[in-house]
Amino acid sequence: MTKKVIIVGGVAGGATAAARLRRISEEIDIILVERGEYISFANCGLPYYVGETIKDRNKLLVQTVEGMSERFNLDIRNLSEVENIDPEEKTVTIKNLQTGEVYKETYDKLLLSPGARPIVPPIPGLDENQALFTLRNVPDTDRIKNYVDTQKPEKAVVIGGGFIGIEMAENLVDRGIEVTIIQMANQIMAPIDFEMASILHKHLKEKGVNLILENSVQAFADQGKQVILLDGTEIQTDMTILSIGVRPENELAKTAGLELGERGGIIVNDYLQTSNQDIYAVGDAVEVVDYINGKKAMIPLAGPANRQGRIAANNIMGKNEKYQGTLGTSIAKVFDLTVAATGNNEKTLKRLGVAYEVVHIHPSSHAGYYPGAAPIALKLIFDKETGKIFGAQAVGADGVDKRMDVIATAIKGNLTVEDLTNLELSYAPPYSSAKDPVNMAGYVATNIMLGDLEQIQWHEVDQVVADGGLLIDVREPKERENGYIPGSINISLNDLRENLDEIPKDQTVYVSCQVGLRGYLASRILKNNGFDVKNVDGGWKTYSSVYGVN
Amino acid sequence: MTKKVIIVGGVAGGATAAARLRRISEEIDIILVERGEYISFANCGLPYYVGETIKDRNKLLVQTVEGMSERFNLDIRNLSEVENIDPEEKTVTIKNLQTGEVYKETYDKLLLSPGARPIVPPIPGLDENQALFTLRNVPDTDRIKNYVDTQKPEKAVVIGGGFIGIEMAENLVDRGIEVTIIQMANQIMAPIDFEMASILHKHLKEKGVNLILENSVQAFADQGKQVILLDGTEIQTDMTILSIGVRPENELAKTAGLELGERGGIIVNDYLQTSNQDIYAVGDAVEVVDYINGKKAMIPLAGPANRQGRIAANNIMGKNEKYQGTLGTSIAKVFDLTVAATGNNEKTLKRLGVAYEVVHIHPSSHAGYYPGAAPIALKLIFDKETGKIFGAQAVGADGVDKRMDVIATAIKGNLTVEDLTNLELSYAPPYSSAKDPVNMAGYVATNIMLGDLEQIQWHEVDQVVADGGLLIDVREPKERENGYIPGSINISLNDLRENLDEIPKDQTVYVSCQVGLRGYLASRILKNNGFDVKNVDGGWKTYSSVYGVN
Ligand SMILES: Cc1cc2nc3c(=O)[nH]c(=O)nc-3n(C[C@H](O)[C@H](O)[C@H](O)COP(=O)(O)OP(=O)(O)OC[C@H]3O[C@@H](n4cnc5c(N)ncnc54)[C@H](O)[C@@H]3O)c2cc1C
Ligand SMILES: Cc1cc2nc3c(=O)[nH]c(=O)nc-3n(C[C@H](O)[C@H](O)[C@H](O)COP(=O)(O)OP(=O)(O)OC[C@H]3O[C@@H](n4cnc5c(N)ncnc54)[C@H](O)[C@@H]3O)c2cc1C
Ligand SMILES: CC(C)(COP(=O)(O)OP(=O)(O)OC[C@H]1O[C@@H](n2cnc3c(N)ncnc32)[C@H](O)[C@@H]1OP(=O)(O)O)[C@@H](O)C(=O)NCCC(=O)NCCS
Ligand SMILES: CC(C)(COP(=O)(O)OP(=O)(O)OC[C@H]1O[C@@H](n2cnc3c(N)ncnc32)[C@H](O)[C@@H]1OP(=O)(O)O)[C@@H](O)C(=O)NCCC(=O)NCCS
Ligand SMILES: [Ca+2]
Ligand SMILES: [Ca+2]
Repeated sequence: MTKKVIIVGGVAGGATAAARLRRISEEIDIILVERGEYISFANCGLPYYVGETIKDRNKLLVQTVEGMSERFNLDIRNLSEVENIDPEEKTVTIKNLQTGEVYKETYDKLLLSPGARPIVPPIPGLDENQALFTLRNVPDTDRIKNYVDTQKPEKAVVIGGGFIGIEMAENLVDRGIEVTIIQMANQIMAPIDFEMASILHKHLKEKGVNLILENSVQAFADQGKQVILLDGTEIQTDMTILSIGVRPENELAKTAGLELGERGGIIVNDYLQTSNQDIYAVGDAVEVVDYINGKKAMIPLAGPANRQGRIAANNIMGKNEKYQGTLGTSIAKVFDLTVAATGNNEKTLKRLGVAYEVVHIHPSSHAGYYPGAAPIALKLIFDKETGKIFGAQAVGADGVDKRMDVIATAIKGNLTVEDLTNLELSYAPPYSSAKDPVNMAGYVATNIMLGDLEQIQWHEVDQVVADGGLLIDVREPKERENGYIPGSINISLNDLRENLDEIPKDQTVYVSCQVGLRGYLASRILKNNGFDVKNVDGGWKTYSSVYGVN
Repeated sequence: MTKKVIIVGGVAGGATAAARLRRISEEIDIILVERGEYISFANCGLPYYVGETIKDRNKLLVQTVEGMSERFNLDIRNLSEVENIDPEEKTVTIKNLQTGEVYKETYDKLLLSPGARPIVPPIPGLDENQALFTLRNVPDTDRIKNYVDTQKPEKAVVIGGGFIGIEMAENLVDRGIEVTIIQMANQIMAPIDFEMASILHKHLKEKGVNLILENSVQAFADQGKQVILLDGTEIQTDMTILSIGVRPENELAKTAGLELGERGGIIVNDYLQTSNQDIYAVGDAVEVVDYINGKKAMIPLAGPANRQGRIAANNIMGKNEKYQGTLGTSIAKVFDLTVAATGNNEKTLKRLGVAYEVVHIHPSSHAGYYPGAAPIALKLIFDKETGKIFGAQAVGADGVDKRMDVIATAIKGNLTVEDLTNLELSYAPPYSSAKDPVNMAGYVATNIMLGDLEQIQWHEVDQVVADGGLLIDVREPKERENGYIPGSINISLNDLRENLDEIPKDQTVYVSCQVGLRGYLASRILKNNGFDVKNVDGGWKTYSSVYGVN
């Protein structure tokens, strides 16, 4: 019987597990060991404290050592590091970082929630860099904020265009700093695909951020005042944030002989048990199963860490609860926009060789006639044969989180794209349209499944035109003044029926419009008149988000 | 084969069906007959035009007769009324309301989407009332707006506290008018339950609205300048909006011998076919099946009308698509708050004799440490045996629509309350918490299913105390200064473990706190120490939303 549980790591997974354990039993001893000074802090809020959107530092501390000890009757040992595990003896070695004292503690069950740490590659000049920061915890944040407050940097370089990099870029801009982001890939925000990220690239530039893609840091010089890129570019800066990703804190697990995955994550079974049955592990440190494709993945997010912490606590206390895998639903604020995603993206599906179909739509966040509506770029990825939803992505100023959450829920409910058309979502003008964007994505996807709509993607258009394909832009002539796909001719939708004899029947005809809707209407007219026709998915809006305005 | 379709009614259901029919076939004749001048207008936007949130009248016209005729090659006959159907001959009689001309038109298939009309009971003085308005269409709106613009009324009475009544109240207040709402029931907004509506009652009062419940209009006097209530109260007013509900426009169907339901709705089968196989009907005029309880219901909402219009069009063209019934997801803006609901409420389940369990929680719309978070009062209703979700309701200033849409989607995916805990919803501080409010509702409900949490409801508390039950308020003493449940004693949560011997073991002990969370923690401590304990669901916040601050 479990009498004594030791938890390594006192934040998202660890603190949640501790609280849950105590709710299950008043009898067991719970020792929470945390290397840092603080437990249970708001990791996700840290960038916003630097940017002063969160003004009160105390707000970052969701719980204190004292508060949590008392409420949950815990033995919390902060500023203490678990240095070693002896799985045979069932003991851990703990070092008190204040006194230097090292001692052993026995356990019946051990839970590891040690998180992850920022990746710091051996870049030349790194050790001499006097203004290089990573961000993971409260001391990191204090360091950055203090530097900004006292050194008043004018320029900053952010290395890495993931969540933390982008959030830090925004928050440094909020502090009046000129920010350059350097990103190795051709896009920021890995969970979404290139054409969706392109909307963010443009927005970052509008906000004065200098975005450098497909480049990386070769070296730091001048004590970090200079960042030298792979292509030789030299950037002057007053500070640098290194945020190219995290790697699991797996040293303890490794030395204890626990099985690790390819990417270094601790391997756990469905019950979040490591290769040692008395040791559980959760959070950023563990390898999870991707809910969509069933492969192993590292998905370091707070929701999964909290959820796993609770499940591990349950199982430690003798329940038998499975962790269902991670869908990877994620979201970030990028200045005035929100970007969110759930499930798998195209890049992943391509890598795995899974056949999929894609839909891009650009509906309003709510009824267009009610003030404040903003367009949402919404991408749905699905299996054309079964209608299974693989994933979705959205970018927009309003209502993005709602649509991703609805689709994430639909995925968990095994709903198909056709089922999306039957979702009964709340509608009044300030909130949505009678057909919600999610319904609409479902309609378009279902039409593709049924063969009622055939389409080509933004990245296929130029080749089609180059190969002599006929592309008809069915917008009004005036709309073309703001840009059009090179090589397209113009027959507006309302004139189409009168101009059918001008359109060849012996070849596939391509149509496009602003967002895809009128192109679809045109394609229906043409199809029903015996033409072979394909619509440019997402219209000019998706195309131009990548290729810009000509 | 279908060659010619006549559609009666040119707005939500009718216009959608017409557009869809044309997308399916370029060949058929489609005649759209609409009594009014306008087709395809934004019914749901009408109150906001009166209130001048929507400033441009043209925005109410989603499509025009000309625009839609051309785009979809339709024969649209506005200002024309279908006066009669001859199902044997398969003809309708149409009256041109401008010329008075009456003529017949044949059809292969007929689609009825005639909507509903405001209920106008024979109140004495009604005919003499010079300032009485109902709101259904554009002319009604013009009439109201013109009256407000030119007569500059100081006072208005709104009869009926449903969606339209409440929206009109807000919009009249926005015009500087002093509004009195008269509602026959003990609450406004029928889709939610009393304790949830109580939050709105308070808010309306804060906004200066005079809310009169459990009263109704006996008569109008003085050409409508006086409204006399059932209890004799006389209210002076400059105008009155009558919005006590709608009844289906069923005259045509009735005279054509189509089967009608008890409440007058046109009866349709799963394929939206009436009792005559060549006549389909959709929208506010039809009786639907309640998705949760399987009973017949009238649910006059735009989403279902649009969806049904498309399905009917499909079936007219030979597809075989079932309408899945209506969940009744609904939403309204009530000044600074949003109220939304999905599925069945307690009142309905009680009426049907269904056993159910309820959870009230009060989470933040997003992480509390990030600015702008607002509490959501979230109610989840479920089957304690199976975990099936019966319905949900929410009231709050932010994030209400998202949570209702997620739960509406979960219902469609047959997810249980336990599945809600495993939803992976998007989390970053501006959008949610690591455990989203929907996850949290799932946790609480699951705890109830497992017997880990026992609770009593707000309406049971006073009786428990009156019967001598021990109610321990586990909040801090300071919190009680803002109000507490009469008869409760105070032992704060953090002092509970030291005071266990003061608590009797031979009787059920009741605990309460601010929102229910600390009460739950207290209940776990007590349960695990051998006490029999029940938590006041939703805490002081739910209790006081009904009983106010003492
Ligand atoms: C700046 C930032 C912003 C983020 N924003 C978001 C967001 O918006 N949304 C989101 O979903 N996620 C976000 N995350 C990720 C999220 O915070 C993590 O996924 C989550 O905290 C992981 O929980 P965990 O318990 O695995 O690790 P952590 O919360 O990091 O906790 C691990 C703890 O273990 C301690 N520890 C490690 N080894 C030892 C040892 N040997 N002995 C003692 N203690 C040890 C560490 O000191 C650390 O405090 C963000 C992260 C950061 C850093
Ligand atoms: C002020 C207001 C606000 C609303 N707000 C919302 C909201 O926020 N959310 C929501 O979901 N729903 C809302 N609704 C309800 C929504 O508008 C209706 O559910 C929807 O319009 C019903 O569609 P329908 O096609 O059945 O009827 P309608 O859209 O009303 O169309 C019926 C049409 O048929 C015509 N007609 C009737 N009989 C005949 C005949 N014999 N010959 C020719 N024409 C005929 C009528 O003139 C009418 O224009 C609101 C309604 C109103 C009035
Ligand atoms: C603060 C912290 C320790 C709280 O953990 P917790 O007690 O499990 O979580 P909460 O305070 O949200 O409470 C949830 C519990 O209360 C219950 N609960 C919530 N509201 C309730 C209500 N109104 N009535 C009854 N019970 C309620 C839930 O069922 C759940 O209990 P269960 O797990 O036993 O089912 C933990 O969330 C934490 O450390 N957070 C900060 C770190 C972090 O997550 N960082 C990453 C994100 S920034
Ligand atoms: C205006 C009106 C006639 C439009 O009807 P509609 O053409 O069916 O609807 P939409 O314009 O939204 O277009 C939806 C169609 O475009 C398709 N579509 C939408 N976006 C698309 C895109 N980006 N790419 C391809 N196709 C797209 C959908 O699949 C759907 O076609 P389908 O039904 O054949 O599958 C109708 O909605 C109406 O009358 N509205 C006002 C009245 C009303 O609803 N009032 C109550 C609410 S206020
Ligand atoms: Ca034309
Ligand atoms: Ca104490």
